Amino acid sequence: MVFPLSSLSAAVPLAPWRSPLARALHRNRSRPYSRYIQLATVQANDRPANRTVVFRGFWGDRNVLQFVTDQRSQKVQDVTLSPWAELCWYFTQTREQFRLAGMVILVTAQHPEAELQTARQRSWDALSESGQRSFFWPHPGDRRHPDHDLEADVPQALPPTPPETFCLGLFNPDWVDHLELRGEPQTRTRYELIDGEWQMMSVNP
Amino acid sequence: MVFPLSSLSAAVPLAPWRSPLARALHRNRSRPYSRYIQLATVQANDRPANRTVVFRGFWGDRNVLQFVTDQRSQKVQDVTLSPWAELCWYFTQTREQFRLAGMVILVTAQHPEAELQTARQRSWDALSESGQRSFFWPHPGDRRHPDHDLEADVPQALPPTPPETFCLGLFNPDWVDHLELRGEPQTRTRYELIDGEWQMMSVNP
Repeated sequence: MVFPLSSLSAAVPLAPWRSPLARALHRNRSRPYSRYIQLATVQANDRPANRTVVFRGFWGDRNVLQFVTDQRSQKVQDVTLSPWAELCWYFTQTREQFRLAGMVILVTAQHPEAELQTARQRSWDALSESGQRSFFWPHPGDRRHPDHDLEADVPQALPPTPPETFCLGLFNPDWVDHLELRGEPQTRTRYELIDGEWQMMSVNP
Repeated sequence: MVFPLSSLSAAVPLAPWRSPLARALHRNRSRPYSRYIQLATVQANDRPANRTVVFRGFWGDRNVLQFVTDQRSQKVQDVTLSPWAELCWYFTQTREQFRLAGMVILVTAQHPEAELQTARQRSWDALSESGQRSFFWPHPGDRRHPDHDLEADVPQALPPTPPETFCLGLFNPDWVDHLELRGEPQTRTRYELIDGEWQMMSVNP
């Protein structure tokens, strides 16, 4: 499935959940795992799947979150069949949870949009060396061969352009739920994208 | 849907993933949020949902995880339509992830099994007072009334038996994936319940 760029909401104006999320990221910045998010998808057998991904920043000036993944991973299969996903992001220091629901766009090596290939290249460049090396490991989730070194197929010099296995994921939310456990009473705010406009309301925790 | 007790695998023998999970819980015990897990379900519209729940221990001597939830919550609706769920549990101190896939059994006030009602009562008893109070709050997720105190309907003395809103969730995994990011190389172990027996294999991270 190829999504036109126009399906991604531009960040003008910045979505109203961006400010509380930026504040949470800032307040929890001393903990590196504050950038770890749980990504839920639906599998071919209609059962959910759930795993941790690393938040790789927003895509340009849009309200779109970036993560990277291996083209051979189960989540790529899931999202190819059904692009809907929900992120659950819990911040341990400030005791608050963001849930973000929306659609994932996969930017593989074959994606025709030049702007998205630029984003894919940038996210490859921003990856650590050990992160880049993992994209040359054997097929994730397959039985491990005890006498086959994971690093056996990693090239001596890592290439400047991403390998075929490297995939950028763009997550475009249309629903956000922000729960703050601290504070008496607790607060919970719901954001919904309706006809291109973000609506915001206070809901019961 | 009512599940017979026989659908829950007894813990004889203890599932092989129990020992690494117990070790992770022990090593991360200084961090209270180590008991927070992300629970993914599938909604009526076929989109996934994902939120944090608190691990409330195992149910007796079975390989079944307990959590509590409000009968009025979205996750109860989801699980009533499709009982499949996947838990994602990331331990920040030891940098390891457990994914557990399986079925949720809801123990509401109406559940006919006496043994399950006993478990429901025990989980109510084990809850903190503030936890118990939240089950008397207004409908979770509904628009919040600014002039209506969340605590308005909480009884002066909390009852010894759980209110109708209190629901015990039992999660019965049939698939577990354990990823250890620490260590060179990383290790990943897959456990699958096949014909009543847990199979275990090492897979590529």
